[in-house]
Amino acid sequence: MKRSFLALAALSLSVPAYADSADDALESDTIAWDFVEGITTEIGPRMPGTEQEERGRVWAMDWLRTNGFANVVNEPFEMETWVRGQETAEVTAPFAQPMAITALSTTSSTGPEGVEAEVVYFPAYSDLDAAAPGSLAGKIAFVSHDMRRAQDGSHYGFAGPARWMAPSLAASKGAVATVIRSVGTDNHRVPHTGTTTFAEGVAPIPAGALSNPDADNLERMFERADGKPIRMKLVLTPRDLGTTMSGNVTGEIVGRDPSLPPVLLACHLDSWDLGTGAIDDGAGCGIIAAAARHVASQGQPLRTIRVLFAGAEETGLWGSKAYAADHADERMFVGLESDFGAGRIWRLESNFTGSDTPLYRKLAAAVARFGVAPSRNVATGGADLNLVREQKGPLIDLQQDGTQYFDLHHTADDTLDKVDPADLRQNVAVWTAVVGILANHGVEIVLPTSE
Amino acid sequence: MKRSFLALAALSLSVPAYADSADDALESDTIAWDFVEGITTEIGPRMPGTEQEERGRVWAMDWLRTNGFANVVNEPFEMETWVRGQETAEVTAPFAQPMAITALSTTSSTGPEGVEAEVVYFPAYSDLDAAAPGSLAGKIAFVSHDMRRAQDGSHYGFAGPARWMAPSLAASKGAVATVIRSVGTDNHRVPHTGTTTFAEGVAPIPAGALSNPDADNLERMFERADGKPIRMKLVLTPRDLGTTMSGNVTGEIVGRDPSLPPVLLACHLDSWDLGTGAIDDGAGCGIIAAAARHVASQGQPLRTIRVLFAGAEETGLWGSKAYAADHADERMFVGLESDFGAGRIWRLESNFTGSDTPLYRKLAAAVARFGVAPSRNVATGGADLNLVREQKGPLIDLQQDGTQYFDLHHTADDTLDKVDPADLRQNVAVWTAVVGILANHGVEIVLPTSE
Repeated sequence: MKRSFLALAALSLSVPAYADSADDALESDTIAWDFVEGITTEIGPRMPGTEQEERGRVWAMDWLRTNGFANVVNEPFEMETWVRGQETAEVTAPFAQPMAITALSTTSSTGPEGVEAEVVYFPAYSDLDAAAPGSLAGKIAFVSHDMRRAQDGSHYGFAGPARWMAPSLAASKGAVATVIRSVGTDNHRVPHTGTTTFAEGVAPIPAGALSNPDADNLERMFERADGKPIRMKLVLTPRDLGTTMSGNVTGEIVGRDPSLPPVLLACHLDSWDLGTGAIDDGAGCGIIAAAARHVASQGQPLRTIRVLFAGAEETGLWGSKAYAADHADERMFVGLESDFGAGRIWRLESNFTGSDTPLYRKLAAAVARFGVAPSRNVATGGADLNLVREQKGPLIDLQQDGTQYFDLHHTADDTLDKVDPADLRQNVAVWTAVVGILANHGVEIVLPTSE
Repeated sequence: MKRSFLALAALSLSVPAYADSADDALESDTIAWDFVEGITTEIGPRMPGTEQEERGRVWAMDWLRTNGFANVVNEPFEMETWVRGQETAEVTAPFAQPMAITALSTTSSTGPEGVEAEVVYFPAYSDLDAAAPGSLAGKIAFVSHDMRRAQDGSHYGFAGPARWMAPSLAASKGAVATVIRSVGTDNHRVPHTGTTTFAEGVAPIPAGALSNPDADNLERMFERADGKPIRMKLVLTPRDLGTTMSGNVTGEIVGRDPSLPPVLLACHLDSWDLGTGAIDDGAGCGIIAAAARHVASQGQPLRTIRVLFAGAEETGLWGSKAYAADHADERMFVGLESDFGAGRIWRLESNFTGSDTPLYRKLAAAVARFGVAPSRNVATGGADLNLVREQKGPLIDLQQDGTQYFDLHHTADDTLDKVDPADLRQNVAVWTAVVGILANHGVEIVLPTSE
């Protein structure tokens, strides 16, 4: 096993295709930065389904045309839109003080008068799960499940259920509201928003995330309260706007043979309202667009390269689902997505590593110069690649270093200053090398027969 | 010069007095942490002149008594109290998006409808200073003076005028409001509040600080606007509450000879409303109280040690001024303050280094083991040592490492998690060593005759 893995990692001695343009990108790309600087500065937050997201689409379409993309279109779709209102939290007894909170979509409103109730503390999601039915009647559940840093971001799967499912679970046991510790790894007073889902038959309740320092403080209150009840008042007034329009923006570098299935590069254009959507996902859109341009600068590729700036990812993958439905019959050659910030790419994964090893080796050889290691992990594609996943098509994951990603994810701190220009260029270089090979690969990719 | 300085730094070979209790403090002090954890958890923000500050005083007096301090009293004083209201900022054209802002005391209100006007950009305070009289009529001044990290905190003096004086200067040139770049060194969306002063005859205007990422964004807008006017809407509704009460809390370790002038250890108990006052200045009060206790644990000292938990420092040194007035005739032996966070102490300064060199050497020898270097800098005492300064009495500054201090100063991020327990114990150890020597020093300190 180990031996074959090493063999796989062995590099070609010839200079890889697109090495020059990738090296140039590493040295001096300005396209990705121009995109992320532009959209964060000139548009800012792009909440799904809102006028701000629409302005982002108009801006991005103009930018794509200015940067030499053809067939730039917006494909509109309908979605259910939730927007934030007022949001405050305060402990009212025994240690009265305000706390930093942000609401989770698609939770309900407390009304302007708010809700005040006793808080019940659950150190982890499993503790809430173990609470007896009805035991939270009239109470606020506090789930303090703690996330740790992981280079591959895998603690999101560990801590995520506290956001994704705890409000519904608490509601099912009678809770009037839920507060969670932010699913994030920083210690700033910038709580992490995100989406939660209420199970069939469970009526939504108000729910918000406390910043990590506030969750720490609330935990200490339980230690110091000598059993006295801790009461909290929440004012969270989000609104459902009903059905509004969003859209998927695409643009193309048209290939020499447009009849061949295109290479699909995905990101999402929307962002949470709290920050300006720099790392989530302005950087991703900048990276994929810059890579497409660098490949084109070496001459027209064989296949069309299509960039998909998906809409409304954050509140439920509305754009990805719409694109998968609308393009179900359009076969894609391969799908890749950039949606994990702007940390350096450190690992190359595909779902054809064992079945089309020559292509995988060629890709691995091309990116080794940028510090990207091969991997046996099977790529599953990102959130906006529903189309390719549903087609059971080829997928590549260019895994970024996510050690710092969850310091910023879904917070007010997702701003341009968090993007390191050199790291961003490394991403563009790796993408250029990979996309250059893929867009000039004449034969279809061999997938495992077991799929 | 260099030679005599080295001679000064030479250490005594005998074990310094209070070395044992200082070493114990370094190893295992829990008193300082108990104070700062307690007041941030059980009280939280302690805005000067408010009910929250009063609750802080009650809590602190109880804590001092519980921890063995005698003569615990509150000395009330009157002050003018300003409190925050609503605060929002948004660029309305050409790149509409919200920005994170916080109001500065003692600025005026925009009213609930807010103020909208064109923004005029000044990269530095000196640029605003150079603007022609009347040139800001109807405009919002944006002063983006940038602060850098400095171990000794000296960039506060460089960047501080942008907060202390720019709103008044802009108002005098006709501005309807002022926004400044936060006087701070972090890149989080947590703007830095603080006090500004309007010159005699200049009517206060609304003024706030943008977080550093927002100030960066606004600067980029000026680069990208192609000369189009940038407009901003501010809603800042602080209120003056008029005259309210605050108070100075003191407690003592009574010495064997209470007729001798006491050693005065100062901090301040109030905090800004945005954070929980952990590093500013919960830590300082914890450090001085812990040191007094560790000295007392070695036997009753010769002199009384008095801790002064001053009130209402943040909005104008109300407590320090009141204490200086009320105790003008009570001679202090020496004054020391802790009010620069919880970073390690790295330098020992006094105002008697050249005039009472034997005492200075003894102190320097006692703290060298904790990584504290001697210095020729002349100590000036902290904000709450007005009494000793006005008496032209002896002062010692135990300089803390302030490299990270202005990441947190006056922000929502001033919370307990920012205090490193080991760094806090180093502070307690150094203070224990110094206070132990001072409280047992039988003769008055010789000050320079030039004073």
